Amino acid sequence: MKRKIRMGMIGGGQGAFIGEVHRMAAALDGHIQLVAGAFSSNAERSALSGQDLYLEKERVYGSYQEMIEAEATLSEEKRLDLISIVTPNHLHFEPAKLALEAGFHVICDKPLCFNLEEAYTLQKLVNEKALIFALTHTYAAYPMVKQAKALIADGKLGTIKKVVVQYPQGWLSTLLEASNQKQASWRTDPTKSGIAGALGDIGTHAYHLAEYITGLQATSICANVNTKVDGRKLDDDNNILLAFNNGAHGVLIASQISAGEANNLNISIYGSLGGVQWSHENPNQLQAKWSDKPDQIFRTGGSEIYPLAQAASRLPSGHPEGYIEAFANIYKNVAMSIQNKLTGTQSKPHHNDFPTIQDGVRGMEFIYACIASGKANHCWTEL
Amino acid sequence: MKRKIRMGMIGGGQGAFIGEVHRMAAALDGHIQLVAGAFSSNAERSALSGQDLYLEKERVYGSYQEMIEAEATLSEEKRLDLISIVTPNHLHFEPAKLALEAGFHVICDKPLCFNLEEAYTLQKLVNEKALIFALTHTYAAYPMVKQAKALIADGKLGTIKKVVVQYPQGWLSTLLEASNQKQASWRTDPTKSGIAGALGDIGTHAYHLAEYITGLQATSICANVNTKVDGRKLDDDNNILLAFNNGAHGVLIASQISAGEANNLNISIYGSLGGVQWSHENPNQLQAKWSDKPDQIFRTGGSEIYPLAQAASRLPSGHPEGYIEAFANIYKNVAMSIQNKLTGTQSKPHHNDFPTIQDGVRGMEFIYACIASGKANHCWTEL
Amino acid sequence: MKRKIRMGMIGGGQGAFIGEVHRMAAALDGHIQLVAGAFSSNAERSALSGQDLYLEKERVYGSYQEMIEAEATLSEEKRLDLISIVTPNHLHFEPAKLALEAGFHVICDKPLCFNLEEAYTLQKLVNEKALIFALTHTYAAYPMVKQAKALIADGKLGTIKKVVVQYPQGWLSTLLEASNQKQASWRTDPTKSGIAGALGDIGTHAYHLAEYITGLQATSICANVNTKVDGRKLDDDNNILLAFNNGAHGVLIASQISAGEANNLNISIYGSLGGVQWSHENPNQLQAKWSDKPDQIFRTGGSEIYPLAQAASRLPSGHPEGYIEAFANIYKNVAMSIQNKLTGTQSKPHHNDFPTIQDGVRGMEFIYACIASGKANHCWTEL
Amino acid sequence: MKRKIRMGMIGGGQGAFIGEVHRMAAALDGHIQLVAGAFSSNAERSALSGQDLYLEKERVYGSYQEMIEAEATLSEEKRLDLISIVTPNHLHFEPAKLALEAGFHVICDKPLCFNLEEAYTLQKLVNEKALIFALTHTYAAYPMVKQAKALIADGKLGTIKKVVVQYPQGWLSTLLEASNQKQASWRTDPTKSGIAGALGDIGTHAYHLAEYITGLQATSICANVNTKVDGRKLDDDNNILLAFNNGAHGVLIASQISAGEANNLNISIYGSLGGVQWSHENPNQLQAKWSDKPDQIFRTGGSEIYPLAQAASRLPSGHPEGYIEAFANIYKNVAMSIQNKLTGTQSKPHHNDFPTIQDGVRGMEFIYACIASGKANHCWTEL
Repeated sequence: MKRKIRMGMIGGGQGAFIGEVHRMAAALDGHIQLVAGAFSSNAERSALSGQDLYLEKERVYGSYQEMIEAEATLSEEKRLDLISIVTPNHLHFEPAKLALEAGFHVICDKPLCFNLEEAYTLQKLVNEKALIFALTHTYAAYPMVKQAKALIADGKLGTIKKVVVQYPQGWLSTLLEASNQKQASWRTDPTKSGIAGALGDIGTHAYHLAEYITGLQATSICANVNTKVDGRKLDDDNNILLAFNNGAHGVLIASQISAGEANNLNISIYGSLGGVQWSHENPNQLQAKWSDKPDQIFRTGGSEIYPLAQAASRLPSGHPEGYIEAFANIYKNVAMSIQNKLTGTQSKPHHNDFPTIQDGVRGMEFIYACIASGKANHCWTEL
Repeated sequence: MKRKIRMGMIGGGQGAFIGEVHRMAAALDGHIQLVAGAFSSNAERSALSGQDLYLEKERVYGSYQEMIEAEATLSEEKRLDLISIVTPNHLHFEPAKLALEAGFHVICDKPLCFNLEEAYTLQKLVNEKALIFALTHTYAAYPMVKQAKALIADGKLGTIKKVVVQYPQGWLSTLLEASNQKQASWRTDPTKSGIAGALGDIGTHAYHLAEYITGLQATSICANVNTKVDGRKLDDDNNILLAFNNGAHGVLIASQISAGEANNLNISIYGSLGGVQWSHENPNQLQAKWSDKPDQIFRTGGSEIYPLAQAASRLPSGHPEGYIEAFANIYKNVAMSIQNKLTGTQSKPHHNDFPTIQDGVRGMEFIYACIASGKANHCWTEL
Repeated sequence: MKRKIRMGMIGGGQGAFIGEVHRMAAALDGHIQLVAGAFSSNAERSALSGQDLYLEKERVYGSYQEMIEAEATLSEEKRLDLISIVTPNHLHFEPAKLALEAGFHVICDKPLCFNLEEAYTLQKLVNEKALIFALTHTYAAYPMVKQAKALIADGKLGTIKKVVVQYPQGWLSTLLEASNQKQASWRTDPTKSGIAGALGDIGTHAYHLAEYITGLQATSICANVNTKVDGRKLDDDNNILLAFNNGAHGVLIASQISAGEANNLNISIYGSLGGVQWSHENPNQLQAKWSDKPDQIFRTGGSEIYPLAQAASRLPSGHPEGYIEAFANIYKNVAMSIQNKLTGTQSKPHHNDFPTIQDGVRGMEFIYACIASGKANHCWTEL
Repeated sequence: MKRKIRMGMIGGGQGAFIGEVHRMAAALDGHIQLVAGAFSSNAERSALSGQDLYLEKERVYGSYQEMIEAEATLSEEKRLDLISIVTPNHLHFEPAKLALEAGFHVICDKPLCFNLEEAYTLQKLVNEKALIFALTHTYAAYPMVKQAKALIADGKLGTIKKVVVQYPQGWLSTLLEASNQKQASWRTDPTKSGIAGALGDIGTHAYHLAEYITGLQATSICANVNTKVDGRKLDDDNNILLAFNNGAHGVLIASQISAGEANNLNISIYGSLGGVQWSHENPNQLQAKWSDKPDQIFRTGGSEIYPLAQAASRLPSGHPEGYIEAFANIYKNVAMSIQNKLTGTQSKPHHNDFPTIQDGVRGMEFIYACIASGKANHCWTEL
């Protein structure tokens, strides 16, 4: 019989930003119940977070090791199905590995992990186990992004020739990490973030978005990797040329020193017959531009929406769906996939429409290629 | 000790639109748990809905009377705190009355009820009991609507002189009710909707929005009430002149035959020093226009946001919040208010920031005044 | 043989705003040459203006009477063809009458004249003479306004059901006339402007636009006519309900106290099949919204543009045309019409696409009906 | 005494696009009179064009050589002041050289000429003569572009760190030149256009815009130069990384295969304190984004506009000015500069605000650097 999926969370304690988003996303559609957590490596803080979340005391743990070990021993009626990992990059690999080894499905925040070696190890592990591993590239979960993907898959744009994806943020325009601001500190710290700053934090989102929508793969890149704020240890501004496997070219911009920008991810894709444009600032519309007819505006829930996009929306046209709903699309599809496994039901196509370990590995490879190209005076580097 | 608020729902079974929205809104922030429901007057259908929602069988009821009666007898550890009413207009009054009489807090969909008499009876009842009664005028719950309210309350616009609020939809451009489409059928049926169609369904939203933001009250109206689709029994298109208690004037448009429009509620308010504009199509920005300086764009979670607006958002600037989040703001504030009652905690100001029975009564009075004015050849009618 | 049309101007001396616009509009397409003028009732100031404009001294006159008289005696090789009247409202009638009586074609700024009697007298005179009389309702001369007209004439929107036209300006939010600001002073002075302020100045534009695009005529109106600034002698804010001859209804707003607005004329028209929206803030696009397919954006010079609209643009798509170009469309069509008369050539349909004396009379009737309705406590008044 | 500037035109005969634009731009403000022309190398066609333009027969010439020679012999009361060159790239150098040698001021369409050698020769010649040489980089002549320049010069954005300028067009998405379309044919023909296609045609505009607004100079570039349409002989799609002399970086995109785009030039510039964005699709607004306060929208003719921008507009705020007005700003400033020379008057600062021979040379150097970088597998190349 169908039942709610039971979820535990690693990280996301009081003061965290993305943990709260994961919880709202998991709760939204009513298929997942948060029942356990190791919200902090400090047991007391973890307990306080658990209390805020109305969890049973005994299922709030002082460490992720403890949680995974304890939950693995619970009866099938109680045991977690799914573990959500919302820690900084350097704390993805270990908990993910343990969780998978203990037989739990995993949802992990991006980028996949700390370095390329970890990525390949995880990939191997996921492929060995028959477990779900989802990565929260949230932007690809917006209905109008899926509409763009479907239009292209349907051939409406002809052959794809050009991709321009920009991800400007401005919040790191100053040396914010010097004031110990929590979000800035770990993201600019090579011991926690890895070899990249903005490239990993937002560049991987932009890169995934471009590949997801077009169905293409970048084969080589030429990267201008900058650190524009004095004293910063990692990149904060990147301008990258892209070459794709079908001969298309493109540009990817990932910058956290674009002062005044909040979170203005946007993408333009041009084929031989027309183009599409999507912007995260107005996510419920997709503008299509045509060589030989007027522009069209597709809207979430509106006319001529493909099934892939329709499956990702909850409301009639004119009722804006936002970031949490996009995030929830990943959680919903993962929950449906787990439920299908539990009940032996065949998944519908859109149930598999979430980023996987392969997307995670590609993201890590992208980071490494960009850093290599940047160091080599921005010459073209294969991916 | 703080605990999750326990909610039951009346209406909102399979195939309903707004019931699902209420459930997502209630679930989003994690403070409310749906534990019971009378989702349909057909017991079997109610049971199926309950199953979809993973509810305990014994708390899924075949009628609202049954639910209210049964839940009232449960122990304090189990009993509902809150009942959410998401039925058509003619089925608001009875369940609301029973729920209040049984001591439950109530969240009710708009408009308040079927006729003015019911409205006054409910108002009296709510005032007698020390219970919360919230009405889901969702649009007033958007952060940037609250920013507009706060700007005006702070005097930034000077004296308010003019209000233009438009609510164009196009979905009733044809006689959709003739095909038994569920949403259209009851909304255009005088035995279910009451004396008004579009006026009640969306006009009351526009009216509430205008009064909420400005802090003014309309004192008289002059209404052009139209039925533009042959065979329809209620109004589907309204153009209304407004006069406010401070001498300001305005226009309110509520139309469901504006073909091609989805749900394009928008409002412009002008004071002696400047104006503000908000549109539901781009709800996370508020444009302020000034006589003597450049326009400004305020953004959800961005710079110079008033506490009232900040309390209504969950994410950093640049992460769109939509309709469900706005809806959830009402549920969250109601949940906090109930929790405060349970724990004897003082409510924070924004906890009371949700539409109440008084707003519901004003909405009903607005409907009646418009219909009266429309019949009287559109002359000015006091509210 | 084709030759440049020779034009004289009445009004528009140094410091005037609209006279300069008329001159640029006349010059733009190269078919008209300004050769004479009575730019001010002060002969010296008129002479200075003529000098600025590189005119021959002997064709710069100290009064319009003098100019009309003198020019009428010149040889056919030199004599004016066309007189452009750009004075305040109370100085339209006399020069227009004299010019027509002397056989000159006339372009006159709007509104037509000072009162209804003058309007009817001019109408009679124009009808008697075989002369062109054009009125500069500039907004109707934008290519995308003409596209809207053509779409409707072609039946694409079905039966027109609703019109919402708004003309908010904010420049009269304060008692600007108290400081003798030139533009404000005459527009708010009943001895120069007539019985109406904002209604005549911008209301007539909005009214003309609605009738031009839809091809309908308003048959009755219900007007809320306000003066929102203390000490002002004429209306500065108007909210008007409209009923059209095909049964459609609408709203017209004409306000000069909408603080923060520059010149934000915009219109939405809904038919049984879809709607169109045009805004003067983004005049080179026309948004069409459809019941059953995605919105479309038509663009000046772009795809699927009707001949009427194409004839009103000069540049390929993506090259913005603005207010002066729209203005010039009236001048160009008048020039072509005069040239056709001179050369005995048949006019092309779009050559007649400019506002005439009939439009001017309707505008004056609109003003009078609104003022009457406003005084009668806003009851419905026939037009 | 002040008089109209007398202009002759080379090129721009019947069927040309840009010649007509030059003529409207020259006519708009009333300071320039077109009196002569060599509109085509075919004398008959030149004569027909002259007739359309109402010119005196004897001043319509069969070749530019003839025109320059003949006009040079005319008396000072009749002789041309200014020659406007609107031919394809390979026909800029010779007429410009002859005109300058004969003592005429020159306005020339962009890019400056056919190859770098010509550019340096012209530069030397202009520097030797005390003559004006203006290049029509029109986009830099929009008021809101100048506002951006002034904001930056005033330090409002802090240190400039990043520039993203994009110029997507779609009209060459197919092999249009195969059908002998006039505009496409010469632009894609190496014997007429030079070594570059899109780079010269629109890339130089984008490049000039970036340098004009920021006041910076690009010092090296890394170019991905593509020909995306089979059979085409020159580049039609370019993605270019930029490094500036102050350490800033950026991206320049110039593409004519961005299907569905009309002429969508746009630029974003970020400094340490905020950013500005301007788009040619909505040219009368400039959006400023700030790290610590709400976005602002500056408008042509509106509040807080710098003198440099104000001098480039003709109308009050809310009256859109477009492409022809921007073009006319160049002609007006050139006309004023010539008049100042004629009358011995000191030029006002904004009279010199037009692109010069130096901008033309930089544009040619940019083309050459990009082609070199593109051939060298996109490595960084000094400018």
